[in-house]
Amino acid sequence: MTSTPPSTRATVRRVPERASYDRQAAHAILDEGLVAHVGLSTDDGPVVIPMLYGRDGDTLLLHGSPASRLLRGGAKGTQMCVTVTLVDGLVLARSAFHHSMNYRSVVVFGQATPITDLTLRRAALDRLVEHIVPGRSAEAREPNEREVRGTLVLALPLDECSVKVRAGGPLDEDDDMDLPVWAGVIPLTTVAGAPVTADDLRSDAAPPGYARHYTRP
Amino acid sequence: MTSTPPSTRATVRRVPERASYDRQAAHAILDEGLVAHVGLSTDDGPVVIPMLYGRDGDTLLLHGSPASRLLRGGAKGTQMCVTVTLVDGLVLARSAFHHSMNYRSVVVFGQATPITDLTLRRAALDRLVEHIVPGRSAEAREPNEREVRGTLVLALPLDECSVKVRAGGPLDEDDDMDLPVWAGVIPLTTVAGAPVTADDLRSDAAPPGYARHYTRP
Repeated sequence: MTSTPPSTRATVRRVPERASYDRQAAHAILDEGLVAHVGLSTDDGPVVIPMLYGRDGDTLLLHGSPASRLLRGGAKGTQMCVTVTLVDGLVLARSAFHHSMNYRSVVVFGQATPITDLTLRRAALDRLVEHIVPGRSAEAREPNEREVRGTLVLALPLDECSVKVRAGGPLDEDDDMDLPVWAGVIPLTTVAGAPVTADDLRSDAAPPGYARHYTRP
Repeated sequence: MTSTPPSTRATVRRVPERASYDRQAAHAILDEGLVAHVGLSTDDGPVVIPMLYGRDGDTLLLHGSPASRLLRGGAKGTQMCVTVTLVDGLVLARSAFHHSMNYRSVVVFGQATPITDLTLRRAALDRLVEHIVPGRSAEAREPNEREVRGTLVLALPLDECSVKVRAGGPLDEDDDMDLPVWAGVIPLTTVAGAPVTADDLRSDAAPPGYARHYTRP
């Protein structure tokens, strides 16, 4: 599953057998995830903020207000680290020490570039909405010029990224295998509930199919 | 819901009306969360890594191998930022621009201290297991001295933390309220599936109640 690390800092050191540098694997995790944890080094130390994001090919898209400290820093080309983690299960080993988590994560290092071209920025904003709810950008009122101009959108290349995956059951010590304690995995998934219509909806629009049967890819 | 920010860097600037500095609110989010995104500034730029964690009163606990670059940095007293985010729903507005996410997050800034006392470290490791599965540390084989000595455990005070919460329906522009498009929230929750017993379980132990009926607090 491993391929070649793209850089020193993107090289996974801990349990490297769980690492890969496969771009398709990174895409799949990014497409399933909803929240990225975006990290930046500042004069006051590191800052890690959760953000919605999108993906366009080998580019990660972040957006927000031009007043956001984090995005402003990113727009200046400051180094960023963006991490997306999917939790798949809790691993209950016979020993406390070997308890673990099944997960899939992508860590991206790099410098972002603001998307200044308004046509490209608009396309990126569509991507961001489509990342949350595929099909939605065709139905929602599209961004007007003021909204497009007033949104900072950053493009972060996926050139320096790593994937780490833990899957499967507990890995216990040989001496512990006969202990009379249950061991296994509690699978965890994110599920969507029935859509809750806005209190102030004036139209008689019913929840669309993509809201009634929402799943992540 | 707001109280006084504990420091400049812990002051929420964007949409401050969603922020609070209430310790009980922070505890509740940390207790429900499973994964923390731990950020550190390094010579190669920021690094953000997902980690399991625990809480003991007003202290966040992190643990791992002494070989972990991130934990080693934290053990030296390097500034850290640790963020825990719970995703509660997707907010579908009438306009693409006002799409959002309902979430609860805690951002902690500070310097961690390694727990060197082995009795305290053992107690912290119990807390970490109990954070994942309450009740489990009494059943699993407890850590032996080699395991306790071989684990780096960091204590990060919650002195500098902020809470941010978005809840409720979409907030659209007045001009968009009559658009014939559905608007509302798709609630998201994390649910546990039926426990999967380890292939190599030798005892006839059945999945315990805390695995069969797993929920977060």
